[in-house]
Amino acid sequence: VILAPGIPAETELGGRACVVVDVLRATTTLTAALEAGAKAIYPLAEPDDAWRLQAQLGGEALLGGERGGLRIGGFDLGNSPREYTRAVVSGKLLCYTTSNGTAALLAAHRAGAAPIYLGALRNATAVARRLVREGRSAVIYCSGSGGRIALEDVVAAGAIAGACQGAGDVVLHDTAAIALATFRWALPDLVEILSRARHGEDLIALGLAEDIAYSAQVGASRMVGQFDGVMVRPAGHILRREVPG
Amino acid sequence: VILAPGIPAETELGGRACVVVDVLRATTTLTAALEAGAKAIYPLAEPDDAWRLQAQLGGEALLGGERGGLRIGGFDLGNSPREYTRAVVSGKLLCYTTSNGTAALLAAHRAGAAPIYLGALRNATAVARRLVREGRSAVIYCSGSGGRIALEDVVAAGAIAGACQGAGDVVLHDTAAIALATFRWALPDLVEILSRARHGEDLIALGLAEDIAYSAQVGASRMVGQFDGVMVRPAGHILRREVPG
Repeated sequence: VILAPGIPAETELGGRACVVVDVLRATTTLTAALEAGAKAIYPLAEPDDAWRLQAQLGGEALLGGERGGLRIGGFDLGNSPREYTRAVVSGKLLCYTTSNGTAALLAAHRAGAAPIYLGALRNATAVARRLVREGRSAVIYCSGSGGRIALEDVVAAGAIAGACQGAGDVVLHDTAAIALATFRWALPDLVEILSRARHGEDLIALGLAEDIAYSAQVGASRMVGQFDGVMVRPAGHILRREVPG
Repeated sequence: VILAPGIPAETELGGRACVVVDVLRATTTLTAALEAGAKAIYPLAEPDDAWRLQAQLGGEALLGGERGGLRIGGFDLGNSPREYTRAVVSGKLLCYTTSNGTAALLAAHRAGAAPIYLGALRNATAVARRLVREGRSAVIYCSGSGGRIALEDVVAAGAIAGACQGAGDVVLHDTAAIALATFRWALPDLVEILSRARHGEDLIALGLAEDIAYSAQVGASRMVGQFDGVMVRPAGHILRREVPG
């Protein structure tokens, strides 16, 4: 587990399966968007990139994301998973940029990780099943918040590591043990603990407490998004497409 | 808590109380050396610095420390706390260099932290009492191992954070909550868990399993060393000297 960007991991990212985690809220929100039928999401570093790509796509894509936790001026959607409903995003392309999560997705791709999955508390067990099925070394990459460790991402990394351990003969490195201990401690009182964490407090100050409660629903979703370096789509979809014939 | 060197903390080190932790083994060993009556220890970056300072001190200081976990060629002592007995170090000056712990002490001083204490599992409660008595914001700085997070240091940071919480009205940042959860998880099976951690496995391979058992004795010591930027001495000693008259 990389507990925050810039922390040296026990293993290199290059050539390894990677789960990027940004519980509050990018990976939770993109998982919700895929569940609601979004066709694909383009994670982009900056708002300008989103405008540019939307124009290139003929103006048909929606713009989503946040800066400072709030919807970017002129964008169709903010970064609350509750905005990404079937009525709004089904069948749509999304150009999407956030402060931490999209940067982590792009960084994992630059570092040569493959495949790259989107992990959250809501899809922790589904992600773990996928990792165990692949049966090779994997790195869980916590996006953090402003370059610093975010408790909710470590908790989700622990949920995924614990679910992997439950599903197979898995060796956890030191950082995975730390994350798993943190998850077990937090689980009985999850919403309260995430609300008192630094990033949770920021969201509550913005009136977004419901996003925390939604994001804390461990294992509620079977959807696993996969990032191929350009776009995020349901992982099964990408795997099917890669099988010839 | 800074979980490993180079990880951005929630707060700046400058002007804050800091506890440097290197459970396996620098801060455990220096605490043992002070308990055994060592007069002062000079933490130094490199073996050459130790040789040079020993010569400047007229050859009377002992040389201690490790590279690759083993005693440095020509040094009087390695880095096992069990070597630093009263018979060997009482009344002595020590020139001391290790791979991670001395670097962390020097880095905390360069960053402007003050006072800087030496924390370990053995003196976790004593360090916590001192922090709570001072009643101000403090950073626990885990030395890690080769720049990476070391489980045993996070466990000790959690022991100290937990003891602070038990002793006063203390607010824990996200990373301190992670460390405390890790400590509570590890405590019932501490020697076993530290033995299976990456750094523990390295020490066992070197035949140093007993150092792990010794280092895991939570709260066994009341000694708290303090680093003033030049030397490590018992914290009480330094405080008394700083009071005029």
